[in-house]
Amino acid sequence: MAIRYPNGKTYIHSDKSLPKKQLNNQLTSFSKRGMSLEDDLNASNQYYLAKGAAVIHKKPTPVQIVKVDYPKRSAAVIKEAYFRHASTTDYNGVYQGYYLDFEAKETKNKLSFPLKNFHEHQIIHMQQCIKQQAICFVIMRFSASERLFLLEAKHLLEYWNKQQLDGRKSIPLKELEKNGYEMYYELSPRIPYLRVVDFLIAKEKDKST
Amino acid sequence: MAIRYPNGKTYIHSDKSLPKKQLNNQLTSFSKRGMSLEDDLNASNQYYLAKGAAVIHKKPTPVQIVKVDYPKRSAAVIKEAYFRHASTTDYNGVYQGYYLDFEAKETKNKLSFPLKNFHEHQIIHMQQCIKQQAICFVIMRFSASERLFLLEAKHLLEYWNKQQLDGRKSIPLKELEKNGYEMYYELSPRIPYLRVVDFLIAKEKDKST
Repeated sequence: MAIRYPNGKTYIHSDKSLPKKQLNNQLTSFSKRGMSLEDDLNASNQYYLAKGAAVIHKKPTPVQIVKVDYPKRSAAVIKEAYFRHASTTDYNGVYQGYYLDFEAKETKNKLSFPLKNFHEHQIIHMQQCIKQQAICFVIMRFSASERLFLLEAKHLLEYWNKQQLDGRKSIPLKELEKNGYEMYYELSPRIPYLRVVDFLIAKEKDKST
Repeated sequence: MAIRYPNGKTYIHSDKSLPKKQLNNQLTSFSKRGMSLEDDLNASNQYYLAKGAAVIHKKPTPVQIVKVDYPKRSAAVIKEAYFRHASTTDYNGVYQGYYLDFEAKETKNKLSFPLKNFHEHQIIHMQQCIKQQAICFVIMRFSASERLFLLEAKHLLEYWNKQQLDGRKSIPLKELEKNGYEMYYELSPRIPYLRVVDFLIAKEKDKST
């Protein structure tokens, strides 16, 4: 029987009755930090918000609601809905007057980051944001090595456009080491990405003076 | 029988079999522009986006998904989900390097705008945004007169905080006429709110020089 927590999540009891493969997956995720890139970023954003450093939120998953029940004496229940494609990236907000906009993605690959992780509408949104002088980037995680990179969107767009010319469908790790900014997990915030943003802002100021 | 459009909305056939009150409501909404404040703002944001003027989007409604079915050969169907409270305002984005953040609300009142239209978490979010130098405001519509105002969040916060002292639970129209910026519907964009934003930016620049 599925037991529900008040947050609506189903409680999964981890015992030997699970198929072996599923059990292995669980162990793997516990042996790591047990947190996804999304969880780590949400926690980092919470930390930045609590410190008054920045106001960055993940956008809710867009859902097309078709049928809603309004039972007496309890909350409305959505009974039929569908996932929609987002027309933007997942994260945005404001930091010291600057508009930040970014997407976060993970790969199981070890030596390159597949471009198919990004969708055309996200790429278009990044182009639009760059034209409006946004600070726009992607946070990429290699789950096997737990290496984390911040890559400015302008570089991602270069790789994206180049794939039609040279057919290369991924960004080599070596290029990320060169063009991206490697980040390391910390206690709080877990992913200190504003430190890289500070660097990007300073770089931009240098250019304009 | 309910006929569904591909967008998931139910087709409502407007005939005399409808109860009189419901029919009246339909006529009323058709006799107006037939568009809600949200529709008008989404269309305005689409216009600004297409013109390359700004990148502003409405955030999706936050939903807590509990149960999803994955039928063979068709899209995943959400079978159980609940509405959650948003932790931010509904609209944000970037305009010429500036971070914009706003909420849009309507009232049927004629002479004042009830503060209960705003939720505490939205007020807190606006305070946080102001600290990060966001351009933060609310767009308010009086549906009876179709009058539209843009009010800077700093003024809304004053009224919000004052209600605990003087118990006044709404903003008088007369004060909106004084402290807000009245806007008028146009063809495109329907609600030309960036014109007021330009004015706010110029005002801010004047102050800092």
